[in-house]
Amino acid sequence: MEFHVYDTTLRDGAQQEGLNLSVADKLAIARHLDGLGVGFIEGGWPGANPRDTEFFKRAVSELALEHARLAAFGATRRVGVRAADDPQVAALRDSGASVVTLVAKSHDRHVELALRTTLEENLAMIRDTVSHLREEGQQVFLDAEHFFDGYRANRDYALEVLKTAYEAGAEVIALCDTNGGMLPTWVADVVNDVREQTQGAVGIHCHNDTGCAVANTLAAVDAGAMHVQGCINGYGERTGNADLVSVVANLQLKMGREVLPTGLLGEATRVAHAVAEVTNVPPAGRQPYVGASAFTHKAGLHASAIKVDPDLYQHMDPAGVGNDMRLLVSDMAGRASIELKGRELGYDLSADRDLVTRVTERVKEAEQRGYTFEAADASFELLLIEEVEGARPSFFDVESWRVISEARGDGSAGSNGSGAADTEAIVKIHADGVRHVETGEGNGPVNALDQALRAAITRAFPVVADFDLIDFKVRIFEGATTRRVDQGHGTDAKTRVLIETSDGSTSWTTVGVGANVIEASWEALVDGLTFGLRAHVGETTPAKGPELE
Amino acid sequence: MEFHVYDTTLRDGAQQEGLNLSVADKLAIARHLDGLGVGFIEGGWPGANPRDTEFFKRAVSELALEHARLAAFGATRRVGVRAADDPQVAALRDSGASVVTLVAKSHDRHVELALRTTLEENLAMIRDTVSHLREEGQQVFLDAEHFFDGYRANRDYALEVLKTAYEAGAEVIALCDTNGGMLPTWVADVVNDVREQTQGAVGIHCHNDTGCAVANTLAAVDAGAMHVQGCINGYGERTGNADLVSVVANLQLKMGREVLPTGLLGEATRVAHAVAEVTNVPPAGRQPYVGASAFTHKAGLHASAIKVDPDLYQHMDPAGVGNDMRLLVSDMAGRASIELKGRELGYDLSADRDLVTRVTERVKEAEQRGYTFEAADASFELLLIEEVEGARPSFFDVESWRVISEARGDGSAGSNGSGAADTEAIVKIHADGVRHVETGEGNGPVNALDQALRAAITRAFPVVADFDLIDFKVRIFEGATTRRVDQGHGTDAKTRVLIETSDGSTSWTTVGVGANVIEASWEALVDGLTFGLRAHVGETTPAKGPELE
Repeated sequence: MEFHVYDTTLRDGAQQEGLNLSVADKLAIARHLDGLGVGFIEGGWPGANPRDTEFFKRAVSELALEHARLAAFGATRRVGVRAADDPQVAALRDSGASVVTLVAKSHDRHVELALRTTLEENLAMIRDTVSHLREEGQQVFLDAEHFFDGYRANRDYALEVLKTAYEAGAEVIALCDTNGGMLPTWVADVVNDVREQTQGAVGIHCHNDTGCAVANTLAAVDAGAMHVQGCINGYGERTGNADLVSVVANLQLKMGREVLPTGLLGEATRVAHAVAEVTNVPPAGRQPYVGASAFTHKAGLHASAIKVDPDLYQHMDPAGVGNDMRLLVSDMAGRASIELKGRELGYDLSADRDLVTRVTERVKEAEQRGYTFEAADASFELLLIEEVEGARPSFFDVESWRVISEARGDGSAGSNGSGAADTEAIVKIHADGVRHVETGEGNGPVNALDQALRAAITRAFPVVADFDLIDFKVRIFEGATTRRVDQGHGTDAKTRVLIETSDGSTSWTTVGVGANVIEASWEALVDGLTFGLRAHVGETTPAKGPELE
Repeated sequence: MEFHVYDTTLRDGAQQEGLNLSVADKLAIARHLDGLGVGFIEGGWPGANPRDTEFFKRAVSELALEHARLAAFGATRRVGVRAADDPQVAALRDSGASVVTLVAKSHDRHVELALRTTLEENLAMIRDTVSHLREEGQQVFLDAEHFFDGYRANRDYALEVLKTAYEAGAEVIALCDTNGGMLPTWVADVVNDVREQTQGAVGIHCHNDTGCAVANTLAAVDAGAMHVQGCINGYGERTGNADLVSVVANLQLKMGREVLPTGLLGEATRVAHAVAEVTNVPPAGRQPYVGASAFTHKAGLHASAIKVDPDLYQHMDPAGVGNDMRLLVSDMAGRASIELKGRELGYDLSADRDLVTRVTERVKEAEQRGYTFEAADASFELLLIEEVEGARPSFFDVESWRVISEARGDGSAGSNGSGAADTEAIVKIHADGVRHVETGEGNGPVNALDQALRAAITRAFPVVADFDLIDFKVRIFEGATTRRVDQGHGTDAKTRVLIETSDGSTSWTTVGVGANVIEASWEALVDGLTFGLRAHVGETTPAKGPELE
């Protein structure tokens, strides 16, 4: 058989704490997974809940999958009924999915305590359900739940479950380390024994409770497994499922197995982040292969050597997974990386040692106060320009700003909610000798300030109307997120805001730090607009505002 | 030799993007690591930067380590000088650390391109530096940098480096997968070959670029390595170093190697989270063994079976690492978990099926609107009480609140900063028929509201003066953190706030959701105080406020 890359993000991945997928989310994720070229997408459990039922209804009509086939997940027939008469089995049969993955108990204690039936009836349930669905013309895979624990508890019965399913027509049986307690050598031993004792394709389904989900999956493939299950970004209950991205990248780039359609592994970073946008789980910067930090270098030691030969310091070319090498500006990086970073931004600093020293000092000093330029290239570039040109770019002067939020009643839209609060911001600035006073209304203080500030600046610089605030990240540090009571009230913490501004074609990120979210946001908003204006207006005298014509 | 657990959080871990450790941070982390019972703590590179130099100065006098020994990290002597005359080597010799870990090149291309010297000189540098430090009475370990890549490029030279170091007196040589590209079977093969070709203790130092750092480390131990290096919580550059917590837990609980002093593995969860507080890197909920989600169950399917026998659904007893099993309230969990959760909070719901249905519906509906009760037990309990008792506990009515923030100039404390903004909040509430109007000043809107609200309520309920807001987390979802431009401005996003309130002895968490941080915070603040008042005041009639006496 050909090798199976089987994604279960929409079913097992959705078990993750804090992860909640709407039908629309699931359809969007399925499209992204198809774009990565996975062979199978497990869409959920039709009949088990309305959401999954609706997903399959819509998936069949709305999804035009190019590479993947849709799999419906479900259980074997209930105790004591015919498979054909079991409504849950019918939901699988009628799901419209050409593949059904049946979960079956292979651990004797689970059969007796959780399923509350006999070991014989469990085998009959598997036999009946598999053969019924096969007769109905579907392809049937089997998830042998708790297989590895079951194998330890009762090897004969665990193997009996596999034989029964193969004989009934299961094409692949995925051995599941449901509780995730396995290590690679153990997985390899069990898979080898299973392959000796049974005929049929073996699959593997691992969880990361020992931190070895990826390695366990690879160990199973080394031992002959031809079907790997996992979730993109390693989503899943508890510690997560095997990260399908790492599994596939290792299989192709390290073990030389071409398991994805040619070229599609290069989409991995884009797809991994696109799915993270849908799940709204912030992408893990340290995720292997596709993380924002996966090919990032910080230490000055490295930075200087990277000038000589980048390949000395990376285990592969990041382009292979659609990722990039990044260099960070940080007080640990020192002069070498400041120089490299400058070059990255188009400034040759090598000639001017004093300049490099001044910039390095500025960066260190700002980082002491909570700034980070690792993500905020635009703020770093403004700092750089200030040192290079002797003055910080400035297109307007701020006279003052004010934000007012108020509510009658409890003012929360909450469970006991009685309607939202009103927020308005007044911003007074001077541009090109003209005073602009604008009021902004928003659904919150930062939004209101953003509206008012851009309204005021647009008078002098119409291009600002095209700018758009597309990302807004708040990080509370010192105290708050660190629960250091000794540092006083949680709300006394310092706030760092990262704002990403777009002009429609490119985007840039600025950072602000302050005692609270409004202050910090204001700084990031001002720098974001300033950076954009410099790019579009160039020199720092404003275009004629309409009111001067 | 006895097995070495060697932590390099303070040196290699500190290379992580966004991680910035002060000397005080490093001292605090060293104490936590000692509490976990690691054998060696690599403190940094004395002489390389002022921070590390100061750390060693203070560590020697201030740290009273019970289990761990301090190791100083540094490089072999410079090209063409005597080890005794190299100031960098002197800094190691005089660091006060009884162990020095020397990093040495073992990859021929790195010697030629990065070190810019001959292969012979590199061997001499190793020989001289190791023997010099040994003569000076220090224990010497060697980090063979890029060893696995070097072994592939030039096996003979890589082995020659090891032999040279052993002969010069290195007690342990840690084979470093510096670029992190290895897989477990490869690591095992190389370690086996090294042990055949050389005499001496072998160590292992892995990075997680293939997602296999933990498994690679275990593979090396299986092949005879007696020294494991890693970082707590898997901190480190790029994708991080091997997570020392997972490595040690696997060695003890899965492989039966007692590598920590008896009983201390039970401190793992506490220590991992304590260190995360110091580093201010939010703990990874899905971290194996010690993550908040590591033993958490969400699916209704599981929840019902867990009633029968918890051990069917966990790979080990969480108590072994100081963690707990948790059940989550979620719309995927359904009635079974609502019932279990109620029991956890001391409410027996099994009798009243309608009640369970109502609560489940309320939870689903709230989660649709962005609430999460997974972390906010107190908010869930208020909801539960409301359904059980027919009314939500209420100790005061809110008439209105208002927050004003304003600044002259740009109002940011930022790089171009001209002083902070002023914020004040006015809160009007009614308690026990008395109207209380209070103003709060704070460094931000939430802080000011918190001050004003507690000032007003304290009049009626003096106990509130003992309450303290100890944690404040902001999560922006829909739009903002997900960069969905199609959802409009980033600042249009919805905000979820989690607030942890303490009465000095216990603490509880409440959740608020709103169009902006102020609204959401207000809801969480009100619920936080309400929950605390119910616990302290009991029934919902206020104590006589002073103004009535």
